Amino acid sequence: MDSLPAFAVGVDLGGTTIKAALVERGVGIQHELSRPTEAEEGPAHVIGRIAEMVQTLIRRAPDHQIAGIGIGAPGTVNWERTAVVYPPNLPGWGIVDLRKALQEALGIPLPVFVENDANLAGLGSAHYGAGRPFDAFIMVTLGTGVGGAIIYRNRIFRGTTGGAGEIGHMSIDYEGPLDRYGIAGSIEAYIGQRFLSRYARYRLLTQRHSLVHQMAGEDLRNLTPRLLYEAARAGDEPAREVLAWAGHKLGCVLASAVNLLDIHKIVVGGGVSAADRFILEPARQTLRRYVIPALRDKVEIIRETLGNEAGMLGAAQLVFQLLEHPSEELEA
Amino acid sequence: MDSLPAFAVGVDLGGTTIKAALVERGVGIQHELSRPTEAEEGPAHVIGRIAEMVQTLIRRAPDHQIAGIGIGAPGTVNWERTAVVYPPNLPGWGIVDLRKALQEALGIPLPVFVENDANLAGLGSAHYGAGRPFDAFIMVTLGTGVGGAIIYRNRIFRGTTGGAGEIGHMSIDYEGPLDRYGIAGSIEAYIGQRFLSRYARYRLLTQRHSLVHQMAGEDLRNLTPRLLYEAARAGDEPAREVLAWAGHKLGCVLASAVNLLDIHKIVVGGGVSAADRFILEPARQTLRRYVIPALRDKVEIIRETLGNEAGMLGAAQLVFQLLEHPSEELEA
Repeated sequence: MDSLPAFAVGVDLGGTTIKAALVERGVGIQHELSRPTEAEEGPAHVIGRIAEMVQTLIRRAPDHQIAGIGIGAPGTVNWERTAVVYPPNLPGWGIVDLRKALQEALGIPLPVFVENDANLAGLGSAHYGAGRPFDAFIMVTLGTGVGGAIIYRNRIFRGTTGGAGEIGHMSIDYEGPLDRYGIAGSIEAYIGQRFLSRYARYRLLTQRHSLVHQMAGEDLRNLTPRLLYEAARAGDEPAREVLAWAGHKLGCVLASAVNLLDIHKIVVGGGVSAADRFILEPARQTLRRYVIPALRDKVEIIRETLGNEAGMLGAAQLVFQLLEHPSEELEA
Repeated sequence: MDSLPAFAVGVDLGGTTIKAALVERGVGIQHELSRPTEAEEGPAHVIGRIAEMVQTLIRRAPDHQIAGIGIGAPGTVNWERTAVVYPPNLPGWGIVDLRKALQEALGIPLPVFVENDANLAGLGSAHYGAGRPFDAFIMVTLGTGVGGAIIYRNRIFRGTTGGAGEIGHMSIDYEGPLDRYGIAGSIEAYIGQRFLSRYARYRLLTQRHSLVHQMAGEDLRNLTPRLLYEAARAGDEPAREVLAWAGHKLGCVLASAVNLLDIHKIVVGGGVSAADRFILEPARQTLRRYVIPALRDKVEIIRETLGNEAGMLGAAQLVFQLLEHPSEELEA
């Protein structure tokens, strides 16, 4: 092979939408496409759809040359990065070898790498986003759940089976509320979207003066984190208190991760992180109190400003990394 | 240089005792020495003493050739692994460049590497102890404090500044008891020797039927974890309950570490771990409940049977590793 093409395709395989981008190495996204996933039609349909998007993007690349394709999906991927394993957002999928299927659908044996989407968001941040100044950081993605990734020496720290970074299921209270896995006091059971919405609803139901009562319907049945931020931005003190409570919990779990890893920078992405001052500022205060003294002046929480693009950029970056240094990443 | 000598000296620089061993690579300790530290005499005295021990051991090596010297010390070492930084067991020491001082004392520029003692216990376990079957595991050392290390791909995972593995200060309850750093609910505040002794004393003071009342003096003022194990081994139910309580807490913090790192094997060393069935069995049960479902069948807690030797073996192993692959470990 001659020198590696400077372009790759990064795919974000979501439950409702497939996003794909042509990424120029070190520069960013050059073209971006979006299609409904239609996951209910099955893997073959979805893979055909990804192949079409990839072909469209290849035609936009110089000389129609790309280095390969990176695909991000939620949940587990296999260690070889070829397959999704019971992806939670694609019901009924089981284990699907995306590399093989996509290569067949394309009719060309382009390199294909599959990786967990939170890990790719971290890798994208490391090379194109808020993580660029650091060669090691913890990525936290606040959304429906609490996703995480460990970036170390500008690469994904994979652990033993490729699943490292599950910060969402670290516990901050061994007798705390249960998350969906039955783990007591995991951070997701406090600030995952469903849990935070329920907590906020119970806490604010009797606080009739809170703005959220004008926004979230009868009995606050439509209360979401997003409505909390809107109320907080409008000056609503009860909503701010809920978000500060969430930020405090986030700071606790981050401190445990920092103490264990000796990694001092934390990049927070995802929709919730838009509420920087209401969640992240309390998180910063708590974080400093819960890390060992030697780290108190070093810890820092930074907000990621890349949105969905982080995952696609990370997917493309993974292709470049693995083709240049296969042994470092792929060995067990 | 010709091929690397197959022997190195591993030193364990304790607050009261210096231990040093001549280690044959892949085989184990060939000779071992022990001297009082006499730390109050200052760094020059202690370094002179280490130099004497090293010289004695070099004379036992084939052709009087060793690859180098590894030194383990508690607390922080600098990233370059040349100096201890305010070692907690050597009061008044500040930052001491052990490499330079020892090379000068020896009069020969042998390679010298300094590393945190918990990290070296982990490395020793990885190459000579219970960690041998695994290329990644979490090492926990139960003693005065709760030490930790992360072994990944048979090497020490160092983090950003060389301080990774501080599992003792991970919190399991954000409103729990404070440790010596003021961190709420850190595992050390439950099972560190001083904390566990105090908890046991208060819990057992009124349980007059417990054997510990015959062992620990008036008002249980001499109660230690070791006495608890002795009582537990003698069948004392109250003592067993205290140790099970400690094991449950240990399982909680290990689960958070496992979830974050995706490292499934845990090697427990240190004096407390002798109480395998009383502490580690409850820890195993809790651990399984607090890790994500995908890991429940994979997690395993193994007891390290090497004692102090683990640290010296690890110190020697570090010398071999760093001389063979300097860039992998030393780059930032």
